[in-house]
Amino acid sequence: MGNFIKRVISALIMLPPVIYVLYKGSIFLMTLVTLVVILCSIEYYRMAGFGRRDSIVAIILHLGAYLTIVYGVSEQMLWVSVVLIFSGLYVLFTVKDVKGASYRAGYLFMGVLYLGVFPAFIYLLREYDSTNGFYYIFTYLATIWLSDTFAYFTGKSIGRHKLYEMISPKKTIEGSIGGLAGGIIGIYAVALIFGKTPSISMLLFVGIVVNAFGQMGDLFESMLKRDYGIKDSGDLIPGHGGMLDRVDAIILSAPIMYLYIRFLI
Amino acid sequence: MGNFIKRVISALIMLPPVIYVLYKGSIFLMTLVTLVVILCSIEYYRMAGFGRRDSIVAIILHLGAYLTIVYGVSEQMLWVSVVLIFSGLYVLFTVKDVKGASYRAGYLFMGVLYLGVFPAFIYLLREYDSTNGFYYIFTYLATIWLSDTFAYFTGKSIGRHKLYEMISPKKTIEGSIGGLAGGIIGIYAVALIFGKTPSISMLLFVGIVVNAFGQMGDLFESMLKRDYGIKDSGDLIPGHGGMLDRVDAIILSAPIMYLYIRFLI
Repeated sequence: MGNFIKRVISALIMLPPVIYVLYKGSIFLMTLVTLVVILCSIEYYRMAGFGRRDSIVAIILHLGAYLTIVYGVSEQMLWVSVVLIFSGLYVLFTVKDVKGASYRAGYLFMGVLYLGVFPAFIYLLREYDSTNGFYYIFTYLATIWLSDTFAYFTGKSIGRHKLYEMISPKKTIEGSIGGLAGGIIGIYAVALIFGKTPSISMLLFVGIVVNAFGQMGDLFESMLKRDYGIKDSGDLIPGHGGMLDRVDAIILSAPIMYLYIRFLI
Repeated sequence: MGNFIKRVISALIMLPPVIYVLYKGSIFLMTLVTLVVILCSIEYYRMAGFGRRDSIVAIILHLGAYLTIVYGVSEQMLWVSVVLIFSGLYVLFTVKDVKGASYRAGYLFMGVLYLGVFPAFIYLLREYDSTNGFYYIFTYLATIWLSDTFAYFTGKSIGRHKLYEMISPKKTIEGSIGGLAGGIIGIYAVALIFGKTPSISMLLFVGIVVNAFGQMGDLFESMLKRDYGIKDSGDLIPGHGGMLDRVDAIILSAPIMYLYIRFLI
């Protein structure tokens, strides 16, 4: 339980500044996400055994993709393609052994998207609607975080059926369903704070769909870690493991949440 | 020399329909590029040892990314991100052994970009300017093809210094320079056909920069092949190897050529 207490204390210390940054949005949020991108990227390449110089170059490429999306350049995909071409050429001209070169190129391509493009949507979904952006991002994060917490406790108390043993042996179907319930509670809790009533579309799409993508995002990162035989992506936050462990659900679900705000709200 | 003659005959048979398609543009070019994407994708996954079902799913994902870019959906990067999320989840839920899962995910991410997004720019650069689009794409392809041919003959006759032995042991620096000269000749030849005078920016940017990216695209594909210890990506076109072998230079340089047409012309 010592680990759990450390986890709660860490969360409580980080929560107020994070909420403040979400409230302010713009350059504050932009900086926070940039920081998260950098920290996650360090862990992402370290766990794959990339060297220091490779990681630095990769992170610069991630930030290139990130800024392209954040600033909504009209030909976004063109500029991201340029970043990716340079990623490929970087591997081509620095790889020491051609055996494994395609793996390194693929991992770098995935990195640019996973840790450059996807996190940009966190920023975009705060900024898309200046009136309700804070409400939306707060609802979104509460859904993901309460889903995680509820999944943990439901799984621990009544979890019996394994969810996906090969990838994450401790997760259970019961925990996952508890997570969906936690997400719905999160949506209602935030609506209460903001004096709003959550719409049916929000309960269904954010509470169930976005939540499920978040849970799958967690599994996706577990898959990468397990491939490399490691438990935590890093040890940045006491009790929470690495930064990537903390935001894995957000990274994969942020574009799906943006989809909701952009087209379904 | 038998192989070389087969190569010339194949090229001569394919050239008229390809030129016709380039001239017509729109749905004709769209279909041709789609076909090339599918054929290249089959080779791309076959050479990495992916199974039949995996390759089919991957190709569907490639086409999803391709169509997103071709139809210029306003939130391009969002839709491509959605395709990529499904790529990641596909690997997550089908991978048989977690060892190598990150490699498979990375290779699929790279595939979606390399064979979904990049080829879309071939279509876009024909369609960007309805008056001169045909002239531009013709100039571009002539540059790439004459570069390849000149590099081959220059290298064969006076090549002495290896260009990048680990990746492509037969290529020489002399051949590469011959390729640059070939590109310039290609630009002038096409300008002659169209009754135009090539601009300085075209000679420099297309003749040198785009040409160089094409040559690097060729090396990039050689790197992938060599990693898997194979010589040709396929045997579709007699004397030419696989389709991917034929278009490797175009795939990596198409976004760079689009950059030129969009911003520098």
